[in-house]
Amino acid sequence: MTRLGIDYGGTKTKLMLVSDEGEIARDTVSTGGLRALGESVGNFLERAGATPASFALTVAGTLDPATGVVGHSANLPWLNGTAPAEVLSSSLGVPGVAVQDGEAAALAEARFGAGRGGDDVFVIALGTGIAGAHVVGGRVRRGAHGAAGEIGHMRTTQSEVVCSCGQRGCLETAIGGSQLADRWRDHGGAAGTGASAQDVVAAARAGDGAAVAALDDAAQALARALLDVCALIDPGLVVIGGGVARSPEWTVQPAVAAAGAAATFHRLPPIELATLGVWAGARGAAEAAAGVPSAVSRG
Amino acid sequence: MTRLGIDYGGTKTKLMLVSDEGEIARDTVSTGGLRALGESVGNFLERAGATPASFALTVAGTLDPATGVVGHSANLPWLNGTAPAEVLSSSLGVPGVAVQDGEAAALAEARFGAGRGGDDVFVIALGTGIAGAHVVGGRVRRGAHGAAGEIGHMRTTQSEVVCSCGQRGCLETAIGGSQLADRWRDHGGAAGTGASAQDVVAAARAGDGAAVAALDDAAQALARALLDVCALIDPGLVVIGGGVARSPEWTVQPAVAAAGAAATFHRLPPIELATLGVWAGARGAAEAAAGVPSAVSRG
Repeated sequence: MTRLGIDYGGTKTKLMLVSDEGEIARDTVSTGGLRALGESVGNFLERAGATPASFALTVAGTLDPATGVVGHSANLPWLNGTAPAEVLSSSLGVPGVAVQDGEAAALAEARFGAGRGGDDVFVIALGTGIAGAHVVGGRVRRGAHGAAGEIGHMRTTQSEVVCSCGQRGCLETAIGGSQLADRWRDHGGAAGTGASAQDVVAAARAGDGAAVAALDDAAQALARALLDVCALIDPGLVVIGGGVARSPEWTVQPAVAAAGAAATFHRLPPIELATLGVWAGARGAAEAAAGVPSAVSRG
Repeated sequence: MTRLGIDYGGTKTKLMLVSDEGEIARDTVSTGGLRALGESVGNFLERAGATPASFALTVAGTLDPATGVVGHSANLPWLNGTAPAEVLSSSLGVPGVAVQDGEAAALAEARFGAGRGGDDVFVIALGTGIAGAHVVGGRVRRGAHGAAGEIGHMRTTQSEVVCSCGQRGCLETAIGGSQLADRWRDHGGAAGTGASAQDVVAAARAGDGAAVAALDDAAQALARALLDVCALIDPGLVVIGGGVARSPEWTVQPAVAAAGAAATFHRLPPIELATLGVWAGARGAAEAAAGVPSAVSRG
């Protein structure tokens, strides 16, 4: 059965067509409104010479999984209060659903990326925000209120830095992309406006002590989070991806080493780097499309 | 189907006979070796005039769920390396299994106690040690290595007190039964040797500032743990029991209030006190006995 995954990002939208045997075609288009998206998708399908049985569309923001209505999307504000999959379904004539973007990416990494073969995988995305998802038996455990996986907002540092969520000392304040640059500055580093995690890593490579200290704090906070995840949910495998993981020797590797050194009773599972990169969301969406009810009845 | 739950404690053993309609009989006997236990159980069944189709026996310690062999039991050391349910099964002529004691108690609280009606319950036992168990759909989530639920060993305080597990600042160092008395002493309180959590509460009630401070620290640590459990796994209900919860106005209630005050994005579920008390283990064991394979085939 041919399925379409649409990763509807803030500036770029990624399209991936898969069959039960794997990927058929992919493309990246500029993000526009839903009408423009319908046209881009139509053109992509024409070029690929395929008609999918179903699609899934990622939403970067809050989403009611029962109704498909977007609560709040910071980067795609025109989606707020709409049911984008329903709109797109009408214009394409193909049934579809909306899925939360982090959930789609985690599902893909767990099933087709670094987690391949494991049926109990905790996926962590180290981006501007920090997302977590426990994927068991190919499904994301959303929790009783759809609020599970918020590893970025566990208190894993002793700092008093206020997080975007309003708490103090969250993991995200230590290792979130832009936060890492702020911590570099806190340590006396020369972080310019808009400095990124990559800038901190570049400075550390060049021997900047403040950058090294900020990255060390970040690794210690991530180590603490890994230990607490193992204590509480004991996953079979951990997969770590996202922009901040792109220089793993400065981020993920020291965190894993610190967690190993600090572990006592814990059963630390293998901890792997994500492998699907920026295509994880589209791949996961294509997978989620397999669950679209009317598509299943088409066989 | 009649089933027997045996809660094999360090000094007392609790026996409970249940049918599908509920409890039939209960008794408490002194704990002895497995031969004495077989005799006590035989006498109990004779008095009750019942022959159970199966039993389950709790083990206070580590247990391989696949083989039923006890790894290490601190209070019942004669069980180490044995398969106690197998031994008891031979002497009673009834099939049985061993279950971890905390797991049995959590299962009972989730299904028949304060969690009744909920299918996603996180149960916390505040005793000398702190145990946690996430019970979903009537089953305890053990994790990939049987090591899940260790809420007592998440770092939820900023203190440097070394925990029995080897880490620093674990929840258990703040609120574990005997640890609470140690913290009272750290605050300058007159805790005698062997002082218990109840002694700390009594002192606080009498206006002892050091006892109040220790209990306040304990409540703050428990609040932090509750927030981190909600962030990571988002349960539908939390149930808190154990000896330290017996004076909830000094322990659980201030922790719940502090969690409520500190919550930001969290979806705090209802937080209830456990209702089965010291019989939770026996009730949960009787429930676990329903899953004994040869018992099921007997119909």
